[in-house]
Amino acid sequence: MQGMQGMPAGWTRRDFLMRFGTAAGSGAMYRAMGAMGLMAIPQAYAGAPKLATDSGRGLSVVIIGAGIGGLTAAYELGKAGYKCTLLEASGRAGGRNRTVRRGDTIREIDSEQVCDFDDEPHLYFNAGPARLPYHHVAILDYCRQFEVALEPFVNDNRGSYFHSTRAFGGKPIRGETIQTDTRGHLAELLAKASNKHALDDVMTADDAEMLRAMLKQWGDLDKDLLYKGSSRGGHIGDEILQAGQPRPPIDLHELLRSDFWQFQMEFAEGWEQHPTMMQPVGGMDGIVKGFVKAIGDGVILRNAPVTKLVNGDKNVRVTYLQDGKPHEIDADFCVNGAPAWLIKKLDHNFSRDYREALDKVHAAKLFKIAFQGKRRFWEEDDHIYGGISWTDQDILQMWYPPHGFHKKKGITLASYTWDPGKGEAWGRLTPAQRLTSAIQQAEKIHPGYGGMVEKGMSIAWAKIPYQMGCAPEWEDADRAVHFKRLQQPDRRHYLVGDQMSYVTGWQEGAVRSAHAVIEHIQQRVATTT
Amino acid sequence: MQGMQGMPAGWTRRDFLMRFGTAAGSGAMYRAMGAMGLMAIPQAYAGAPKLATDSGRGLSVVIIGAGIGGLTAAYELGKAGYKCTLLEASGRAGGRNRTVRRGDTIREIDSEQVCDFDDEPHLYFNAGPARLPYHHVAILDYCRQFEVALEPFVNDNRGSYFHSTRAFGGKPIRGETIQTDTRGHLAELLAKASNKHALDDVMTADDAEMLRAMLKQWGDLDKDLLYKGSSRGGHIGDEILQAGQPRPPIDLHELLRSDFWQFQMEFAEGWEQHPTMMQPVGGMDGIVKGFVKAIGDGVILRNAPVTKLVNGDKNVRVTYLQDGKPHEIDADFCVNGAPAWLIKKLDHNFSRDYREALDKVHAAKLFKIAFQGKRRFWEEDDHIYGGISWTDQDILQMWYPPHGFHKKKGITLASYTWDPGKGEAWGRLTPAQRLTSAIQQAEKIHPGYGGMVEKGMSIAWAKIPYQMGCAPEWEDADRAVHFKRLQQPDRRHYLVGDQMSYVTGWQEGAVRSAHAVIEHIQQRVATTT
Repeated sequence: MQGMQGMPAGWTRRDFLMRFGTAAGSGAMYRAMGAMGLMAIPQAYAGAPKLATDSGRGLSVVIIGAGIGGLTAAYELGKAGYKCTLLEASGRAGGRNRTVRRGDTIREIDSEQVCDFDDEPHLYFNAGPARLPYHHVAILDYCRQFEVALEPFVNDNRGSYFHSTRAFGGKPIRGETIQTDTRGHLAELLAKASNKHALDDVMTADDAEMLRAMLKQWGDLDKDLLYKGSSRGGHIGDEILQAGQPRPPIDLHELLRSDFWQFQMEFAEGWEQHPTMMQPVGGMDGIVKGFVKAIGDGVILRNAPVTKLVNGDKNVRVTYLQDGKPHEIDADFCVNGAPAWLIKKLDHNFSRDYREALDKVHAAKLFKIAFQGKRRFWEEDDHIYGGISWTDQDILQMWYPPHGFHKKKGITLASYTWDPGKGEAWGRLTPAQRLTSAIQQAEKIHPGYGGMVEKGMSIAWAKIPYQMGCAPEWEDADRAVHFKRLQQPDRRHYLVGDQMSYVTGWQEGAVRSAHAVIEHIQQRVATTT
Repeated sequence: MQGMQGMPAGWTRRDFLMRFGTAAGSGAMYRAMGAMGLMAIPQAYAGAPKLATDSGRGLSVVIIGAGIGGLTAAYELGKAGYKCTLLEASGRAGGRNRTVRRGDTIREIDSEQVCDFDDEPHLYFNAGPARLPYHHVAILDYCRQFEVALEPFVNDNRGSYFHSTRAFGGKPIRGETIQTDTRGHLAELLAKASNKHALDDVMTADDAEMLRAMLKQWGDLDKDLLYKGSSRGGHIGDEILQAGQPRPPIDLHELLRSDFWQFQMEFAEGWEQHPTMMQPVGGMDGIVKGFVKAIGDGVILRNAPVTKLVNGDKNVRVTYLQDGKPHEIDADFCVNGAPAWLIKKLDHNFSRDYREALDKVHAAKLFKIAFQGKRRFWEEDDHIYGGISWTDQDILQMWYPPHGFHKKKGITLASYTWDPGKGEAWGRLTPAQRLTSAIQQAEKIHPGYGGMVEKGMSIAWAKIPYQMGCAPEWEDADRAVHFKRLQQPDRRHYLVGDQMSYVTGWQEGAVRSAHAVIEHIQQRVATTT
């Protein structure tokens, strides 16, 4: 990021551009900027590796885990003629891509919840991934291929709430208020600093003048460059038939104290979180259904947990159970999408550095609770259409469905938290206790919540058999060494999944890791035959 | 806004809150804040005026114009037993709520365009209003009543472009880059000022320390509080299987020079523009269809332009044409949703102050061009899913549909401009010339645009018969006096429409103005009988 290759030492990027611009004209300057990565460069994604038809004829692959990584491998390798066998430990394909509907069961290691949401297409709960950023081009490409209909997902609804137990008197405040007032205060402070010439050493007088003009617009300051509130944050009284008055701003001190700037306020600015975000119509598992249909159902063996993995020079032998009985399968390659923390517990013969690297992958403990609203009170009472409310309580987030607006009922999240300690604590509660606790906290944001919801379902990913965690985590120091090791095969064994990417917890990582493995296998086959 | 009623002179709001908090405890403090409008107060909308069944029995109303204002009046008054006749000058109901599909004709005073988009439900062009803010509760309430399905509308897609002919070398830059870099630079500057103690007179040392911590998060600054680029703005190189590097930032000077901070960068911060925005599934005229069905088609006379309006103490007599022949209709009340600039040209007997007030309403000249994409190149090539690209050329905006993602084709706007001069200039061109010019400009943002689109349709609202403009404008000084006059009836004549609101150009204004009129009629009837 910092390195500007080819620039004279001591030059700033601006020095470079200004001089380059002066010397060579603006066209040349901007070609240079393009080369330096300043310009809009569409994602360079050329699609899945192109494998020639029949390039895999006579070769076999055993794939472990029917998550998105395994499904991608089975689909792409299958198209090229590889004989694929996909061993799925659980009873369903999809891995963490999981949509819960009426009749579905969430089994944890010590509990079982059967979903009795009403039976309507919009009443579902994406228990795993729930959104697709516009630049996750590989998973989106499969949505296109499989004709999985997509619709916008709302992350940043300015009408939803920020709730702090230590600020604003414990009352929920709309996002538009928080965001607008923060912006206004920051703009006013910077304008003051500029007026006091505190920035004269870092910018020209012309730029300073433009800056102040910008700040006026940017923060909605008054003519004296003071922030007195902005209609962007809403109005007091009628604003339709009368001239609405902007609400007076929340004091900066109070905004600072609320602490939402730690990450919640910036959340929807993130690369993976800013618009346009999308979701499949009818549930995230539309993608899984697309893969399964394309792969052909015969390829997938369900309820077939792997117990042993003998990795050899010429083939790989995988032992799995079906109906409690062990079966063996030999294949030319093994593509493994099971979580690293479970793979390492198998009976295996991996090399030492590979084993050590597997040890460095840590499981996150994400937790979600969904309720069926008896009515869509968040729309009817609060005018909240999709998006997220934030709180400093353990539930962390409440989600409102970005679909099914104005229908009778809806599935709404009372909690989604990724804090490891809190995720673990939620997991220790029984499903019934979780619902009680979540309702108690949700009441602070939506008084009467408990009476307005029903049929709660929760999922503690750390307690889901054959998952025992999710969204793998790495220490930065480990990534440099051990991650690179795992990106290489151990003899004939390859790892896939979001764990093998820098975007853990996102399906894009699983797809792209599978593509890399496919490419590696393809080259290996091409060079050894 | 500035006035804090009841506070000791010289106190700031914070003084007040701090002392009040100290004296009375935090609960009392925040009850006070609530009273001062700092708290989240749900929109106080109690629904349309409740008219008793049969309260209008024996009374008649002639309603002029089947736009949203007229339709609202006809629906609500009709339910209460008033005999309503709705005279619509054009051949269709809806007014500016207008969705153009295959086979529809856009007639301007000197041209005619027939739409030959492909015949699919997602291929439509909302020629008038195209979005619904979450807080436009009255129009949303009708969507609920009429079961008009809604879906999210994307205003702020960070993946779409900013294009300036005078900055960035004329190359389009993604919104995420512009927004992230601006934020980063402003945060860095403010952190510098704070470090230099330039703000010591306006905040405590504790707050300043929190402020710097906030700025680090808020602008994604490095540990030295410098902005060196942020992954929020995207990466250089692969970011999925390798650690992505944030793009180096665009220089603040260049951002200032681009001028997008005049309004485009702030656009989606606006009260009427920030999320959640919505649109009816299948076209905005779903709302019109809902009203028409609810009203009963017999109430609406189409192709019935009004020519004369005799306003009396006991009734109102309206003359209208059908098949060129004049007809007269007498009614107890007239509710008029025609544009003020057309009403004043009728043969009428309004009082002088009313006439003068009508003169103060000015027509805006909004202009839109839509094309059918032969393919969805904005998604396929640019990974743009909905949202708006901005340019400093005359087309001003390009819109991408927030629905029908990944389908074969889509309707995309090559222009939406509200600049009066530019709107007028576009209107002077023939429809064919408009398309040529728009394509020429769009090529700067999407090279090859002309070859990728087909079947363009444009609308210059200032040239649409019986509209001759849109989104009424008021001078601020006039609003105080003349607007208030027009909110009162002239004898038995009432005005409705967005022109009678502070949110001109929005359907909410039309609905709420109609509600106000209904309420006035109700009280009048109640007090005179």
